[in-house]
Amino acid sequence: MRQITASQLDDIALGAAVLGTGGGGDPYIGKLMAKAAIDRNGPVTLLDPSEVDDDALVIPAGMMGAPTVMVEKIPRGTEIITAFEAIQNFLGRKATATMSVEAGGLNSTTPFVVAAELGIPLVDADMMGRAFPEIQMVMPSLYGIKATPMAIADEKGNSAILNTINNKWTETLARTMTVDMGCSAMLAAFAMSGAQVKEAGVGRTITQIESIGRTIRAAQTAHVDPIDAVRRATGGFVIWRGKVTDVARRTETGFARGDAFISGLGEFEGKSLRISFQNEFLIAQTEDEVLVTTPDLITVLDAETGHPITTETLRYGFRVAVLGMPCDRRWRTPAGIALVGPGYFGYKTDYIPIEKRYG
Amino acid sequence: MRQITASQLDDIALGAAVLGTGGGGDPYIGKLMAKAAIDRNGPVTLLDPSEVDDDALVIPAGMMGAPTVMVEKIPRGTEIITAFEAIQNFLGRKATATMSVEAGGLNSTTPFVVAAELGIPLVDADMMGRAFPEIQMVMPSLYGIKATPMAIADEKGNSAILNTINNKWTETLARTMTVDMGCSAMLAAFAMSGAQVKEAGVGRTITQIESIGRTIRAAQTAHVDPIDAVRRATGGFVIWRGKVTDVARRTETGFARGDAFISGLGEFEGKSLRISFQNEFLIAQTEDEVLVTTPDLITVLDAETGHPITTETLRYGFRVAVLGMPCDRRWRTPAGIALVGPGYFGYKTDYIPIEKRYG
Repeated sequence: MRQITASQLDDIALGAAVLGTGGGGDPYIGKLMAKAAIDRNGPVTLLDPSEVDDDALVIPAGMMGAPTVMVEKIPRGTEIITAFEAIQNFLGRKATATMSVEAGGLNSTTPFVVAAELGIPLVDADMMGRAFPEIQMVMPSLYGIKATPMAIADEKGNSAILNTINNKWTETLARTMTVDMGCSAMLAAFAMSGAQVKEAGVGRTITQIESIGRTIRAAQTAHVDPIDAVRRATGGFVIWRGKVTDVARRTETGFARGDAFISGLGEFEGKSLRISFQNEFLIAQTEDEVLVTTPDLITVLDAETGHPITTETLRYGFRVAVLGMPCDRRWRTPAGIALVGPGYFGYKTDYIPIEKRYG
Repeated sequence: MRQITASQLDDIALGAAVLGTGGGGDPYIGKLMAKAAIDRNGPVTLLDPSEVDDDALVIPAGMMGAPTVMVEKIPRGTEIITAFEAIQNFLGRKATATMSVEAGGLNSTTPFVVAAELGIPLVDADMMGRAFPEIQMVMPSLYGIKATPMAIADEKGNSAILNTINNKWTETLARTMTVDMGCSAMLAAFAMSGAQVKEAGVGRTITQIESIGRTIRAAQTAHVDPIDAVRRATGGFVIWRGKVTDVARRTETGFARGDAFISGLGEFEGKSLRISFQNEFLIAQTEDEVLVTTPDLITVLDAETGHPITTETLRYGFRVAVLGMPCDRRWRTPAGIALVGPGYFGYKTDYIPIEKRYG
């Protein structure tokens, strides 16, 4: 158990964008919201998963929608509390703690708002160990844990409680509702017991992203190569260095979809990398070779600063390094690959663990 | 207070299709569901609005979606109970009675399923005095009564409780959810006190549609002109007689939309009538004249039998009479016209009460 103050959120948000694999929303917005909530209410208690009682009620909270929209339509901050209280009312029970939906982007910091405003602890864990674009793409799905009852709320005051037959249906209904609500909405879902969090959660990811963020900051201060520092901090591999030549993006069916093209520099000179995304980067390939695919992580870093670049800020001329990082091993099971592997997203390629390609 | 048995449902469903103005879904399906529920559970008690306690809890129930879809995707019958029980659970209170959402089509008989299965009475009233295509188009909207909390459920087992800032937002969120659910869903909404039902409801519509249905049946037996019988029973006007020459229909954004074209016969010879619909018939006009518009009722009757024809069964070759009927006077207020008048549906014509044109 430790206290998280507003000043620690810079490292947390920075590291979150690395595991966000280009998606999960702009961490800057989540950081501002979380800082304001901590300024008003005091520090947030971060609980190690081992410190959570088995019969505790843990309710994850986060944001849903297209990151491209979230950048312009900034949350009020009250809608996530609306969603959280709606689910508590529905369950007839107060949550012992809250938790991050994903370790990446905005959603690693939004639950700090809930924790600070409601005075409850945050569990040092998330449900993905990275960011993924769809609701059912969480580790608890592999353990048969249901997303519903799920509360969803917008900034206008509309809300709903969903009860679905499976987590794919939660995604379907919540996604179009999010589109109706203006392409972004807040949600509280996957209510779990402490025992379920320990089994089905991805543990200590807040600590991990804080450490990654600290590493990037320290490298900048010490004038060390930040790309190499991030690589070491994440157990990843530098799969590309180059210059962004084009980004084709479209906001459709509630997602930010598209492709980024990066011409190679140095050892990659003469070739071009294409990274396709649906909120998150999903597959990186050259004209003749697949380099990394989901569920392994693909992150684009600014070559100078080592700062991660989200899909919605990526643009022509950026000099970047692309990092591939191994995912949680449970994503590599047949059930995990069926849920979040390249085939689910329509890419006709087998999943090969990144260490097999680069290790 | 009186008992409704399965045998009375034939007249009720027949009359409901007259006030359904082509929409509200196929009354045959609603009738079968209601008959089966009464066979299993016994007759349904029909309460006159004056017999409802002022502090009673009345929860209307019905179906939402495109009638074209409902004809093929027949409800299980359990989903309306799922929706009704979900709203009761959310309110933490059992309903004293249920009520019809609309006096037209399927939704005049679906609440009989709830009443029979749950053993509660049905109030002899509805919220429109006809059928309209959107959720906010009900008399309670004119009295500031909210649609939410609203429960919505599908036949697969998915459900949701919506809470919205106004009834237009209920329509928006419930409509796309209905599309996701397969273009039809069951709902329970507009929970009202008995006092509110007396003020904001349209009273005695079940008795009225039963009487219309009985009139059609009696006219057939007595070999009297059924069109004239319906005209007298509804206070309406025969605005057209002719033959259907074309029906252009499309199912889009969860609605059955289109136009029916009817060439004139007898006194209407040489001209063609066009009736446009969005689930319900909304405007009837010739090349040079508007004959009837919403909120007044437009119904197409089979010229031989006097049976009403819904938009989804209307087709080339049918010999028909078109009836225009006056709506509840409250729809004719400025607020009523703003909510359900021709302008709302995009028709650039003023509303003129049918009696002014034909009276």
